[in-house]
Amino acid sequence: MKIIENPNRSFWSDILERPSFPISTLDSIVKEIFEDVSKNGDEALKRYTKRFDNVDLRTFDVTKEELKNAQNDVSNELKDAIKLAERNIKIFHRSQRIEKTVITTSEGVQCWQESRAIEKVGIYIPGGSAPLFSTVLMLGIPAKLAGCKEIILCTPPNKNGDIHPAILFTANLIGVRKVFKLGGIQAIAAYTYGTESIPKVHKIFGPGNQFVTAAKQFSLAKGIAIDMPAGPSELLVLADNSANPSFVASDLLSQAEHGSDSQVICVSRSSDFLKEVSNEITSQMEFLPRKDLAKKAIQNSKLIYLEEEKDILDLINEYAPEHLIIAVENEDHYLENIINAGSVFIGNYSPESAGDYASGTNHTLPTNGFAKAYNGVNLDAFVKKITFQKISKKGIENIGRAIEVMADAEGLYAHKNAITLRLKSIN
Amino acid sequence: MKIIENPNRSFWSDILERPSFPISTLDSIVKEIFEDVSKNGDEALKRYTKRFDNVDLRTFDVTKEELKNAQNDVSNELKDAIKLAERNIKIFHRSQRIEKTVITTSEGVQCWQESRAIEKVGIYIPGGSAPLFSTVLMLGIPAKLAGCKEIILCTPPNKNGDIHPAILFTANLIGVRKVFKLGGIQAIAAYTYGTESIPKVHKIFGPGNQFVTAAKQFSLAKGIAIDMPAGPSELLVLADNSANPSFVASDLLSQAEHGSDSQVICVSRSSDFLKEVSNEITSQMEFLPRKDLAKKAIQNSKLIYLEEEKDILDLINEYAPEHLIIAVENEDHYLENIINAGSVFIGNYSPESAGDYASGTNHTLPTNGFAKAYNGVNLDAFVKKITFQKISKKGIENIGRAIEVMADAEGLYAHKNAITLRLKSIN
Repeated sequence: MKIIENPNRSFWSDILERPSFPISTLDSIVKEIFEDVSKNGDEALKRYTKRFDNVDLRTFDVTKEELKNAQNDVSNELKDAIKLAERNIKIFHRSQRIEKTVITTSEGVQCWQESRAIEKVGIYIPGGSAPLFSTVLMLGIPAKLAGCKEIILCTPPNKNGDIHPAILFTANLIGVRKVFKLGGIQAIAAYTYGTESIPKVHKIFGPGNQFVTAAKQFSLAKGIAIDMPAGPSELLVLADNSANPSFVASDLLSQAEHGSDSQVICVSRSSDFLKEVSNEITSQMEFLPRKDLAKKAIQNSKLIYLEEEKDILDLINEYAPEHLIIAVENEDHYLENIINAGSVFIGNYSPESAGDYASGTNHTLPTNGFAKAYNGVNLDAFVKKITFQKISKKGIENIGRAIEVMADAEGLYAHKNAITLRLKSIN
Repeated sequence: MKIIENPNRSFWSDILERPSFPISTLDSIVKEIFEDVSKNGDEALKRYTKRFDNVDLRTFDVTKEELKNAQNDVSNELKDAIKLAERNIKIFHRSQRIEKTVITTSEGVQCWQESRAIEKVGIYIPGGSAPLFSTVLMLGIPAKLAGCKEIILCTPPNKNGDIHPAILFTANLIGVRKVFKLGGIQAIAAYTYGTESIPKVHKIFGPGNQFVTAAKQFSLAKGIAIDMPAGPSELLVLADNSANPSFVASDLLSQAEHGSDSQVICVSRSSDFLKEVSNEITSQMEFLPRKDLAKKAIQNSKLIYLEEEKDILDLINEYAPEHLIIAVENEDHYLENIINAGSVFIGNYSPESAGDYASGTNHTLPTNGFAKAYNGVNLDAFVKKITFQKISKKGIENIGRAIEVMADAEGLYAHKNAITLRLKSIN
């Protein structure tokens, strides 16, 4: 891997450019499937499941027997691991609850916020080779903690019409009972309109390929909320000579193996360190089963040498990485000044994969620079905060005149009159 | 106004249907202007300002002289009213700050969230007859409290190239210094791409007509965050005989005067009360300068008699009103069970116009049923919560094995290896 030395700021946007992520060409197929599902409901869902997943399903429900079998098909070791992760994710997300605090803004004017769970949420878990039961934890646990009444999970069946037992085990463990064998654009369309089998939801969560991503955008335009816009996964590691080049290489590779469009960046004030990381990547990569994917991602990736701390901070904030590892001696300086990142991992023993699975933080995070405006999924993603206000006679006497004057200046006389009538009734 | 008595649930969706709000036909004009602004920058902005606002501008900046004149052109009474509102909005939004809390999920595994302000935010204030300086308060104050570095305000100029002095006074009062004379689709396009004069932003806030709404949706699809999807304003009042029909009528009318597409609904267990409200609406409406708008909105509106408390709650939650006034004796029952609403006003002396201006709560709220998944603007809308984690050797010993097992089961061997290397280095 080539090391980029002290790049001029005018080149930063080129260096930091994300791998392209085309999406708009899918609009017509997404629209077609949405219209079909909206009109024909379950019948359309079955047709698409046959076409895309190569399986004829009578119903989308997971049976009790399938759930029971799943318990037997997951090893005890994996069960224990999932339970440890569940525990930590629960502890961290439960800590995000906020207490109701009543604020008196003027005498007699009380205002507060209260969280109320989104009633119906839809979780999407992709299919494919890797069964993403970890994402079931990351989305299902906060949905349960928030108190969402209806939590639906859709995930595509394999050719035999089955769902991976680890996904079923995990959903059952955390109390997500409505699991459907349904994937792709048709699953997101079902969440958007509802069908005979699949309930319409108010918000859709979860990762997916470019089809699912395009479908979620379409759903958003139709008025359904989504967790966040999606893009390929990415990691930026900031390290100095106090870091371990072998650890850093393993972290870069663990991001790179996600897909050929993943991106990893390592920034350091030591070019010797970067050379060691480069060598470590080459040697570790050989032993990876997914080394073909990782090799392609590594081609998109950058080792950047920068002298000045100020430049390093600006570069990180400009890139706004989904994952940021900070393995330097003066970590506090960076922690205080990081503005844009999804999740930050501090020190030599905080690998990104800890946050992917079991430390307790969420792994559904903003990619593609969206960390400039969005945060990752947390408990707040499953609630809405309603504002309440209770004003007494004394309160309206205190603020009523100001409201009259402002409403009058905005030309809204009925707004003014709603105050005038009340003030008159008091005096 | 006709009273709808105990409607069957199968009719609810018809009764509660929002006035139609067409938007998709604007896509081509929005796309054209966005492309033009993206290519031609300020030159395009000036062309559209001439075409749509009928004014030839040399620069979009508000001059110091204009700011100074604005101070003189606002009455002292209005200045004082705006300052009182500013104070209350500041108190309430400041109270929404959260403390950083470090959580130990497993021994040696520390996780926490920290809020970081979105660096660049764009506020849009509509032009037209009413100068919405109150919205400058509602969006500018939390942006300042959050610590957003760059707060831009765009608002269209009138035919003389001026901005209403109350808008300039308010922006200056709260410390929003970058005010530009720019409106419509072209302002949102400028926020999306940036031009020579107007900085690109990460998130766009503010109300607008159907053109601005369509432009914000387009911007969202281009990766810029927006406050929330928009729709016409609406109010639902729940009242019993303990309420004052004259007050209730004044509240319904203050919502109705916003525009002919506004919607107001009053629900009660007393049909006599609803009759009184209807009579009050008829008599109060005559005295409103905007009675033509209000009359049209009242035509969309509904007085609904329902006997059962359970039905009332279900109907409110199904409608998910932007504004909800609860003026009944047993208010607690409803307050506890409301799930979907933007902002709730409790009792006879809490008119909706209090929250529009000066109680302290925000008036940028979810309409069109979006309260099922979104909340109104609050301090959180201007920050992102970054998660941090710091894991010690002890910590990775505690959770490392679980991560290895899970990564292995998901087929992500580099993820596993990042743990294995660290565990080996410790033992």
